Amino acid sequence: MANEKIPYKIYLSEEEMPKFWYNVRADMKVKPAPLVNPGTLQPMTAADLAPVFCDELIAQELDNDTRQVPIPEEIRGFYKMYRPSPLVRAYCLEEKLGTPAHIYYKFEGNNTSGSHKLNSAIAQAYYAKKQGLRGVTTETGAGQWGTALSMACAYLGLDCKVYMVKVSYEQKPFRREVMRTYGASVTPSPSMETAVGRKILAEHPGTTGSLGCAISEAVEVATSNPGYRYVLGSVLNQVLLHQSVIGLETKIALDKYGVVPDIIIGCAGGGSNLGGLISPFMGEKLRGERDYRIIAVEPASCPSFTRGKFAYDFCDTGMICPLAKMYTLGAGFIPSPNHAGGLRFHGMSPVLSQLYHDGYMEATSVEQTAVFEAAEFFARTEGILPAPESSHAIKVAIDEAKKCKETGEAKNIVFGLTGTGYFDLVAYEQYNNGTMTDRIPTDEELAVGLNALPPQPEF
Amino acid sequence: MANEKIPYKIYLSEEEMPKFWYNVRADMKVKPAPLVNPGTLQPMTAADLAPVFCDELIAQELDNDTRQVPIPEEIRGFYKMYRPSPLVRAYCLEEKLGTPAHIYYKFEGNNTSGSHKLNSAIAQAYYAKKQGLRGVTTETGAGQWGTALSMACAYLGLDCKVYMVKVSYEQKPFRREVMRTYGASVTPSPSMETAVGRKILAEHPGTTGSLGCAISEAVEVATSNPGYRYVLGSVLNQVLLHQSVIGLETKIALDKYGVVPDIIIGCAGGGSNLGGLISPFMGEKLRGERDYRIIAVEPASCPSFTRGKFAYDFCDTGMICPLAKMYTLGAGFIPSPNHAGGLRFHGMSPVLSQLYHDGYMEATSVEQTAVFEAAEFFARTEGILPAPESSHAIKVAIDEAKKCKETGEAKNIVFGLTGTGYFDLVAYEQYNNGTMTDRIPTDEELAVGLNALPPQPEF
Repeated sequence: MANEKIPYKIYLSEEEMPKFWYNVRADMKVKPAPLVNPGTLQPMTAADLAPVFCDELIAQELDNDTRQVPIPEEIRGFYKMYRPSPLVRAYCLEEKLGTPAHIYYKFEGNNTSGSHKLNSAIAQAYYAKKQGLRGVTTETGAGQWGTALSMACAYLGLDCKVYMVKVSYEQKPFRREVMRTYGASVTPSPSMETAVGRKILAEHPGTTGSLGCAISEAVEVATSNPGYRYVLGSVLNQVLLHQSVIGLETKIALDKYGVVPDIIIGCAGGGSNLGGLISPFMGEKLRGERDYRIIAVEPASCPSFTRGKFAYDFCDTGMICPLAKMYTLGAGFIPSPNHAGGLRFHGMSPVLSQLYHDGYMEATSVEQTAVFEAAEFFARTEGILPAPESSHAIKVAIDEAKKCKETGEAKNIVFGLTGTGYFDLVAYEQYNNGTMTDRIPTDEELAVGLNALPPQPEF
Repeated sequence: MANEKIPYKIYLSEEEMPKFWYNVRADMKVKPAPLVNPGTLQPMTAADLAPVFCDELIAQELDNDTRQVPIPEEIRGFYKMYRPSPLVRAYCLEEKLGTPAHIYYKFEGNNTSGSHKLNSAIAQAYYAKKQGLRGVTTETGAGQWGTALSMACAYLGLDCKVYMVKVSYEQKPFRREVMRTYGASVTPSPSMETAVGRKILAEHPGTTGSLGCAISEAVEVATSNPGYRYVLGSVLNQVLLHQSVIGLETKIALDKYGVVPDIIIGCAGGGSNLGGLISPFMGEKLRGERDYRIIAVEPASCPSFTRGKFAYDFCDTGMICPLAKMYTLGAGFIPSPNHAGGLRFHGMSPVLSQLYHDGYMEATSVEQTAVFEAAEFFARTEGILPAPESSHAIKVAIDEAKKCKETGEAKNIVFGLTGTGYFDLVAYEQYNNGTMTDRIPTDEELAVGLNALPPQPEF
């Protein structure tokens, strides 16, 4: 089929959809560092993690060896509700840019949660249900992950408690309402419901919350209520495993038409989309079979890859979670209040952090007005209003396509379009009104978080 | 392929997509009544309509004979950006209902305008551009049509002026922002920008506007600015022609798997989606080739089919438009303020009105709390948060599937899922909070509009 005209959208048939997730850790020479107990600084065992996560997910979290993990039939059934997602050939964008580059994007926004998050939400909810649990707890910032988890739990009949960063809860009442429509309880964080929430509120009475703080509350509730476990939408190894479905579908679709990407671009917050998108390509690179240029794009206002430290740090503000070794700005880091572009987490997936550290990928940061400019251009050209997060990748994909125009190279550029911007219109309004600003943290500002990292393990 | 397992989602290939729109009027024995001039009560000619609509669209409006109208290559290219839309086999819904019925829905919400409206918006914008016009004007209520038109105009580089019903403009700032992101100007209606707006404001100083009133303003602006024409997202014959792409894709997909629908269900406001969805099936019915049960579903609070009169009436409140013969509640009818379910137009497509009058289809009305109950059930089961409009069809499809459960019949039920509910969360919030109410107009209330119809032509 290699010479056939490539359609605007490549949809795999149900038979072509992946039957296994791909675990990139199996091909990593240097494995990601283990989670450690912040008290003992010793690696967390499955038994240590059991009060927090459900058993099967712990096994996936700790398994650095199994290359292919079968996707359970029930999860594949749910995937068929909204997958395969299209791999889009951006003919309109190419034409508007006048570039010889061939641009492809894997669009994960055509489901009600509005993003790729659903790929891992259904997996995590499924294993919780299978273990006979009553429900799960989680945090959400912008709301994509909380919505995805609510949808998965509604489908399986599982209780779902979401701690939503207070500023988002107040600014995004519609996100809250979608979650309620899916039967989830949504609590603004920090709340008076948890010890950690009360402590944070006592110390910072006017706080509007942070992702790290909402994580602390959700973990506390999971560990103190029988029949509940905590689930997380990014950062963890298990999440990257589930999200590999994005990259696997992308690769199957490209292979079908004989297309080999030169550059693969993804936005990076905690790493769930980027890790999923690049995984099978990174696997080939790790095994020395093929080389790809892989670029992580992060906001200049939350630059963990490009300005963070590769060190053990807390994933949460309340400092009740295990430590993870990752590129981090410090668990206390909160992006400037004018930051509207998402990708606000202070850390980064340990898998991606290790790969970046070992030179298998690049990272770059972009400022938000340039990101929204690219978003608007893309919306008008390709007809999809992108999420601010996804627009980071759009910005760099457009920049690379423009370089191709200069050099005359017909490179194949693939990027991840993680989701839609329907719930981000306050930010679009700022951009449309010309009131959006950029704000890059100074070295002094970053030093506050970077100098407050916890004691490091000796191994 | 008739015996192959039917996938969750049937996507046509680009080659399978329709190359012609289907004009159901060609197969109607009794043609829809012509538009008439409200002053002379004589049929409007192409010359009469030329100041309002662009020429090619007038030709399509008046053409009751051409069965197949080629879809221009440029429009087909745009269609490929977001079409084909999936025909979904609702396996999850069937299982949850425990029904032997086979349920299918044609999902038109996977584009940024969030509905099927884009199918006609791009066609109307294309012909305006082809005629060398500078721009188009329109009205929008909930905002789906305005968004669709903004997207089409941005793509073609055409100016777009949207008059948005004031209450929606204020309650749906995000809809307004999407349109602005696509470069449209959006004015709350009634406004002081037009003579008709100033007149309405003088007579009703506190009015929050209506669709009929916004139409009047948009038509005035189009006819008083050189290089502009007016476009409308529903009701008109040309719109049903463009929307036939929905039904054609549906039929191609069903034929591919040897599935013959027993019941076809669509929500009905002005008739754009219903008319498009049923067109090729109605064609077979009109030609006596096959019989289908076809059901229009409308809100009990705006029941034009089920409680209106089949008569000539104005399409707009300002009474500056031609008269159309249709099922109508009177141009002055405004649904009760507690109505949140959409489909608020006082009239109905003349094509559908004639077909209903001649007994080719049924109509039923449903109350909004029952509609939202069905919507929530659907969201949790099929993973798509539906628009309130679409949920009218969901409600009746579920009712029919339940009847099949009682009788044990494995009927094929097809319905139109016109769009998503991302911008309707104020209504979902009312439903979630238990504050949503029903309100069916009394006969006395309806009599006000029905007794104020304009003088009728003698033919």
